[in-house]
Amino acid sequence: MARCGVNARIVDKRATKVFRGHADGLRAGTLELFDSMGFQHRVLHEGVEITEFCFWARDENGDLKRTKQVRSESLDSAPYRMHGLSQGRIERYILDAIKDSSDLVVERGVAAESLEYDASLENNHEEYPITVKLRTLTEEELSAASTYGGLQSLSRDNVAPDDVEDLTPERKHEPGTVEIVKAKYLISCDGGRSWTRKQLDIPFTGSTTEHIWGVLDVVPITNFPDVRRAATVSSEFGTLLVIPRERQLVRFYVPLTEVDISSGRFDRSSITLNMMREKVQQMLKPFQFDFKVCDWWTTYQVSHLRGLSLRSYRSKQLDQIGQRIAQNFTKGRVYLAGDAVHNHSPKVGLGMNISLQDGFNIGWKVALVAKGVAHASILDTYEPERRRLAEMLVDFDRRWSPLFLKQQGGSPPPDAHAKFEAMKEVLDSVEPFAEGLLSHYGDSPLVHKNGQKIAKNLSPGEKLISAKVRSQADGITRWTTRVFQSDGRFRILLLAGDVRVEEQKHRVLTFGEYLASPDSVLRRFSRKAAKLHATIDVVTIHSAPVEDVQLFDFPQALRPFDEDNGWEYDKIWGDEKCHWDLQCDGRVYEKWGVDRQKGAVVALRPDQYIGWIGDLEDVEGLSKYFGGIFRAPKQRALL
Amino acid sequence: MARCGVNARIVDKRATKVFRGHADGLRAGTLELFDSMGFQHRVLHEGVEITEFCFWARDENGDLKRTKQVRSESLDSAPYRMHGLSQGRIERYILDAIKDSSDLVVERGVAAESLEYDASLENNHEEYPITVKLRTLTEEELSAASTYGGLQSLSRDNVAPDDVEDLTPERKHEPGTVEIVKAKYLISCDGGRSWTRKQLDIPFTGSTTEHIWGVLDVVPITNFPDVRRAATVSSEFGTLLVIPRERQLVRFYVPLTEVDISSGRFDRSSITLNMMREKVQQMLKPFQFDFKVCDWWTTYQVSHLRGLSLRSYRSKQLDQIGQRIAQNFTKGRVYLAGDAVHNHSPKVGLGMNISLQDGFNIGWKVALVAKGVAHASILDTYEPERRRLAEMLVDFDRRWSPLFLKQQGGSPPPDAHAKFEAMKEVLDSVEPFAEGLLSHYGDSPLVHKNGQKIAKNLSPGEKLISAKVRSQADGITRWTTRVFQSDGRFRILLLAGDVRVEEQKHRVLTFGEYLASPDSVLRRFSRKAAKLHATIDVVTIHSAPVEDVQLFDFPQALRPFDEDNGWEYDKIWGDEKCHWDLQCDGRVYEKWGVDRQKGAVVALRPDQYIGWIGDLEDVEGLSKYFGGIFRAPKQRALL
Repeated sequence: MARCGVNARIVDKRATKVFRGHADGLRAGTLELFDSMGFQHRVLHEGVEITEFCFWARDENGDLKRTKQVRSESLDSAPYRMHGLSQGRIERYILDAIKDSSDLVVERGVAAESLEYDASLENNHEEYPITVKLRTLTEEELSAASTYGGLQSLSRDNVAPDDVEDLTPERKHEPGTVEIVKAKYLISCDGGRSWTRKQLDIPFTGSTTEHIWGVLDVVPITNFPDVRRAATVSSEFGTLLVIPRERQLVRFYVPLTEVDISSGRFDRSSITLNMMREKVQQMLKPFQFDFKVCDWWTTYQVSHLRGLSLRSYRSKQLDQIGQRIAQNFTKGRVYLAGDAVHNHSPKVGLGMNISLQDGFNIGWKVALVAKGVAHASILDTYEPERRRLAEMLVDFDRRWSPLFLKQQGGSPPPDAHAKFEAMKEVLDSVEPFAEGLLSHYGDSPLVHKNGQKIAKNLSPGEKLISAKVRSQADGITRWTTRVFQSDGRFRILLLAGDVRVEEQKHRVLTFGEYLASPDSVLRRFSRKAAKLHATIDVVTIHSAPVEDVQLFDFPQALRPFDEDNGWEYDKIWGDEKCHWDLQCDGRVYEKWGVDRQKGAVVALRPDQYIGWIGDLEDVEGLSKYFGGIFRAPKQRALL
Repeated sequence: MARCGVNARIVDKRATKVFRGHADGLRAGTLELFDSMGFQHRVLHEGVEITEFCFWARDENGDLKRTKQVRSESLDSAPYRMHGLSQGRIERYILDAIKDSSDLVVERGVAAESLEYDASLENNHEEYPITVKLRTLTEEELSAASTYGGLQSLSRDNVAPDDVEDLTPERKHEPGTVEIVKAKYLISCDGGRSWTRKQLDIPFTGSTTEHIWGVLDVVPITNFPDVRRAATVSSEFGTLLVIPRERQLVRFYVPLTEVDISSGRFDRSSITLNMMREKVQQMLKPFQFDFKVCDWWTTYQVSHLRGLSLRSYRSKQLDQIGQRIAQNFTKGRVYLAGDAVHNHSPKVGLGMNISLQDGFNIGWKVALVAKGVAHASILDTYEPERRRLAEMLVDFDRRWSPLFLKQQGGSPPPDAHAKFEAMKEVLDSVEPFAEGLLSHYGDSPLVHKNGQKIAKNLSPGEKLISAKVRSQADGITRWTTRVFQSDGRFRILLLAGDVRVEEQKHRVLTFGEYLASPDSVLRRFSRKAAKLHATIDVVTIHSAPVEDVQLFDFPQALRPFDEDNGWEYDKIWGDEKCHWDLQCDGRVYEKWGVDRQKGAVVALRPDQYIGWIGDLEDVEGLSKYFGGIFRAPKQRALL
């Protein structure tokens, strides 16, 4: 949204960004998103790649043994694999990216105090149906509202050097200042206890179960061999989950089910850091376990839904987390995203991922509608698209979390192998969804499911499968995730096929002529000829050897020209094997199920989801797709 | 040096860091150095990989044709290949790394005005033989001395977002302030016209030839197909050199030999930006060439040595560049580095690389001697090691630059193929040196050439050949360049061989016992038992499958323990093929010529140069090597 030039206010009730703890698992799909935003290299550098998953349990003699060490092979040809990295660092990268592209700042310590929505203005997108009262909090309010649960106080000596300035963010207004803000759109990412959701009276329902868990971010002192691998350790107390992290940290999810919550009231004072330490020690025996450095810890309660108030105790928080989905994700032009609409246990390692992608999904849609470029109807796709993901998320948690619980009643614990099989089955079945490779977005103005057979392994409504391609102009290799930068533009991906073949070359030239013609989607939806690619970018991937063809053999519409900067040299790519970059294997067409000679045309949304697929002659289908999304400049002039 | 905790002043006469132009070619070896410093990922993200070199010339009909497109295959298994990126960005990364590790700042606009050296204090390293008078320049002096030759004035809108603050660096002192600074050591990197070199009366001699060249950093508007590849274009005017860069920029080295310099005085006013534009247009015909965006331009003169004063004209500079090497690189405890000791034409694309490595070479040596950890005699290795490189550099330039010149006298120009062959021959022969893979460092306290045959492809005096290894603790893969972080420590690299074999396991345990014994180099040169690895780090790479062995099977001395942070999990690695990272091919032992079962021991210097190689039993050789470098704590106490 910053890159789209959106005029916005970003407010956060908390005093500062996150520095410690909270979410820490980044899935493949999220790293692909970061790549399209230009900062995935920072995650790869600072985070910890999690390549293997180990299952530990006690055998019949009570000895703790590794049942199995497995890893996902389905991601071998993907750009990225899961990484462990603290939420605070990810916020850092996003804040830096916002700063690089705009003057937007996150205003900290600013709370919304009232929300009014005037539905009568809803259909006129020049009007401001939303009225929010904002108040700059006082220092006392800030320290009371702080959700930070760490043990150390934060200082310039114990936060990352580039986070130091954010320890004391500038306040835009004096404490106590009240403002009335009028807005066209409101996106609320205000967490499981969402204030916005309550203002809108949106029910938040779902099933829950009853258990107390601890979360520990520590530098472990242990000879448990898999402490730097993702691991589960099953025992009679439940199952411990181990996730390695940056700076020698390891996160432990600790079952604390022996706490008595049967009375309906949970005795919070009974949980201490030491109790969690001892529980891990018990579960890892005979291996040693201890720590001196604790970066952060908290507890959460997976319990019957009983109100949503924050309950904090000393330096730790106690959260209540059930498995819930909001009844609505939007009300008019107010959009809820993240934990505000789906709640689940953190053990699935997915919350931040799904939430970031919620925000991204509604973000580019609002940006395009606010600019007057796209029809307002695309906003209606937000809820159905993201509800589907929320349902998959909660379903995963319902199947996964119980596997971490202490065996209930008198039933004997399953043997190590049965336990492994049960866990592996859940992991395998959710993997494509969890890694962000399966979304099931339905038919809509943004997704035309036309039953095409031209790209056998690609489907409208799913993300484009990432692949590495070679640049025609300079021979460098690049993942498609980076080629298709997140800049709010849709893309026509021309799979030009083998342009050495005369017949195919002719088809490509004809397609190029179409793009340059007054009827083309480029011309129809651009304000000026000079900005032909401002709304829809065109990227070509051909299948001929890069050395056998020339950039200037391709039609002009495929290599945009700018009077000041000349031709864009990074719009034409080849599907060619590269000897010094083994990931670039020249099998992109095969991966996508596209004929190497004949190619195809793919319409990509700004989020790299596939909107439409057709052949080079189906300009009518292409035109229809974009016609349902964009306003012609004349229509816009009527606004 | 920042990481070693050196107490230093860094002063720069110029008003600001570099933002535009200057050096821009990064070779493989320099990227490896950056990897060991933790910021190579920023170069890879922002820079442009230069993968191919294209040779263009006119054929017998006068048509401009690509004679050949070649690429270096010798780097296929290396971590990095050449990148094009502006010096200003590289300075950014280095400044950020300094800030992350220390409170050192570069004081801008501060000039040295006198230098006194008291040789009588030279041998006592507690004394301060150097006295420098520093003066904070006034704004007038700063603008006069500015060497910036760009066309645009710099502003927050046209520099990188993270460079904005450096447009107006804070001044420590009021303009005109004079300080007298006493120093133990002085490292001068003050360029071809080195003030320090002149103060020390060090002759700077060498051969030169006579030619005027232009350098252009522009966003080209051209249909020349190889403008985004490294390319030479030969013609009757001489040879044009094309180097692609970040932000759509391309650097052109333009021969301007028709300027009359025969009178001995060069008419500077005759060179204009337009003249350079027209020359490139002529040379690239029939391809179009133009530009509107010029980031920076300058001219330089490869001429007879005739004084070294800065001559600037309007927005451009005129440099005089010959091929010269300083007679001495040091005087007592004053060390000259970079262009101050070697001068050559920029067309070799190596100046910044060799200069950075000069500075790094003397940097860690001074840091270790200043801390009292190492014998002062290691400082004497600076000049012989780096002079060898300077000689290779100047020799390369002597062979390379003439190939870019207009054919002299009446001799007919060589045909395109002969020209290509001549260029290719030079490139091929210098490649190992140019990419930083060959250095010929001689025998010294830091390099024991013991004629070993145990690692057939490794030699003391050369850098360790980079390879990718798998972590025993977590299965991640990493280049050795990053495993061996630049932190001023020497390293014992234990190639432990196949530890599944009983006999070999025994040898490794015995070596571990040696390291833990009071006589070991670790114990002898550490102040406290708790800091056993503070001076010499130990890294193990074994050849067994990672799944078949456990971290805790290895002796304690190979996995350092810290009371607060537990065991270091990143010290034991395996040479094992990794399915999802094809660069990690399980052939490290083979690459290094080491027996997979029996292994070897390699002593690595802080710069990843090999100091010594022996087998696991040769603890005497190992001991002798480190004994010649480090002071025992007792010796230090006598200081």
